[in-house]
Order: sequence, then C-alpha cells, then structure tokens
Amino acid sequence: MKQKIGRQNVLYPMPVTIVAALVQGRVNFINIAHVGILNAAAPHLITLGMHTMHHTNAGIRENKTFSVNILSEGKMVEMDYVGLVSGRETDKSRVFETFFGELKTAPIIKDCPVSMECRLIDIYDTGTHDIFIGEIVGTYVDDAVLTSGRVDLAKVKPLLFDMGTRRYWTLGAAIGECWSAGKALIST
Amino acid sequence: MKQKIGRQNVLYPMPVTIVAALVQGRVNFINIAHVGILNAAAPHLITLGMHTMHHTNAGIRENKTFSVNILSEGKMVEMDYVGLVSGRETDKSRVFETFFGELKTAPIIKDCPVSMECRLIDIYDTGTHDIFIGEIVGTYVDDAVLTSGRVDLAKVKPLLFDMGTRRYWTLGAAIGECWSAGKALIST
Repeated sequence: MKQKIGRQNVLYPMPVTIVAALVQGRVNFINIAHVGILNAAAPHLITLGMHTMHHTNAGIRENKTFSVNILSEGKMVEMDYVGLVSGRETDKSRVFETFFGELKTAPIIKDCPVSMECRLIDIYDTGTHDIFIGEIVGTYVDDAVLTSGRVDLAKVKPLLFDMGTRRYWTLGAAIGECWSAGKALIST
Repeated sequence: MKQKIGRQNVLYPMPVTIVAALVQGRVNFINIAHVGILNAAAPHLITLGMHTMHHTNAGIRENKTFSVNILSEGKMVEMDYVGLVSGRETDKSRVFETFFGELKTAPIIKDCPVSMECRLIDIYDTGTHDIFIGEIVGTYVDDAVLTSGRVDLAKVKPLLFDMGTRRYWTLGAAIGECWSAGKALIST
C-alpha cells in the first residue's frame, strides 16, 4: 500500500561534507549534505544549498572560493559539532587542520581523505538559501584511500545523511557495476 | 600522504534515482545519480543534472513535470537497464509499472518504495547538461518502508552511485544522530 505524505523531500541519503572557507580571514567550517552534482563534464560543477543565515556564506561571497571535504566515519563528532555552533560566536578554526591549494583562499581539510578545492562561479537564489555553484579546480586525496589510482569508497568510509530520521549512516558493500548490471535485459 | 589528482569530482556516493517522464505521450525512464538538494524549506527544490543528449529531457521540457523515484536494491538490474538503452530506439514504458498523481503528466513508479512528483520550475544551463530544477508537489511512499511515520532508509535499502569505480553500493548502518553527535565538543 502506498500513501501520500505531503510534499516531503525524500531524496536521501546524501553524502555528508564539511565545507571550509575563510570568513574575514579566519578559517571556518560547516557540515553540508544538501549538495548536488550538476554535470559529468569539464568544468566539473557542484552545488551547496546553504541557508542564508550561515556565517560561512559571507566568506564564500567574500573570497569566491571554498573547499568541499569528504570525511571518514571517525570524524563524525567533529563534523556534527561544526554544524552546531556558528563561526559568528565560536572560533572553529582549530577543529580541523587545513592547508591551502592553488586558490590560496580555500582552506582544505587535512584530516579528510578526499577534498575538492572550488572556485565560486555562480549563486542561484531560492530566497531562503544561497545555492553556491562551484567549479572544482583541484582534488586532493590521501594515498591510503586509493585503489589502482581511483578513490575507493570502501577505504574512505564516508557518512551519509538523512533528514527523515536525522541520522548519519555508513556505506555498505558494492554490489554491482554501473552500465553493466542491466545488460541482461537488453534483447538481442 | 596526500596527492593531487587533477580536477576530479569526488562528491560521492550519490543516491541513485530513476527519473520518469512522458515523452511524446509515452512513459520513459532513466537512471540519474547526479542529483541535488537546493534547500530545506518549502517549496522543496531538487535538481537533476542530465546531459542534453538524453531522450527524457525533451519530455521534461514538453510537460514541465517528472518524478524522481528511489529504488530498492532488488531493482538494480532494471534500474541499470534503463540507463543503457535510449527511449528513442527502445520502448521502456513497461520496465516499471506507473501511476499518475496530481500533476497528471508525471508517471510515478509503483515498484519504487519512495517517489517524488515534481513540477519543473527552472532549467539551469551548463552547456552540456540541462539542470532541471523541480519543486516537489507530492511524495508517495510504501507503508512497508515507514517507521513511526518517517521514511526508514534501513527498510528502503536504496542504492548509491560512485563515478570513481562506477559501482552501485548499498547503505550500511545508522551510527549517529544529526545535530547531536557533536554536542560533546561544545564547551560549557
């Protein structure tokens, strides 16, 4: 039996990220899972859907740069913490260690196994949220999470987010190959 | 040790969806994992990043409606199949059973435990991809995947996608509460 449950967004789980930016010269972090991938072509474009009330938004507008970092399960507490307190009142700059890449103003989280350095190319305005559209200009990964030169999610151990039950989930096993599993149904 | 691996998009895993639309009067399906969430406010807005070559794009433009469906693991083969063949050459209308909701022109997949009926409100153009921005106007769920009235991902058993290794992944366990796990770090 199906039921209609109003107009809920149930596009979950989504990958949890930690977004880092400089805000008035200080490194700041926020967790964001309302992200998106726009294309599979260069330049690679991704989105962050961030309520306009957040302190980090000002820094992204100021420098037009930010980083998007994928954490491992072991950093769940720190990741959740940076979403609980605002950089307006709390200095979060030491929660994670950072370094700078080619953009010079986008702090990249050393403690995250996978990071993307982004240049802000556009802002889509929904009224309540700034949708920051970033071009990926540099991707940094820990050797330890690579298998045959590719990022191996089984080694990354990312977290996923679900607004329905407001929980963080781990990743399970890989069970199929894309553009392959369905070949059995192609009539010859 | 960190290494820079060019400008790769590593914002994975992303949730796998099946998008359904009417194209010239016929139901068509395609799998899309390059999705996004723009906001956490009404109207709820989500994005689909779809290469302009896809047949489904014409139907979304034609009717200004579509549905986004979350499948369970058991439908992996059918889901992968609808991404392997184009509706231009192949009638995929019977791969899944559908019904219509309030928009009348957005087929909703009965075999998927969670579905969102969407109205197209804007198209963001990246050159190679149409970014369809949809407003969620109706959410349909199977009773079987609800726990205390909320969608329970442990029951949905969604699939996740990763472009790095091009595999489908299952969901693991829930290991933490959002806006809670980090409270231990708030200094009192």
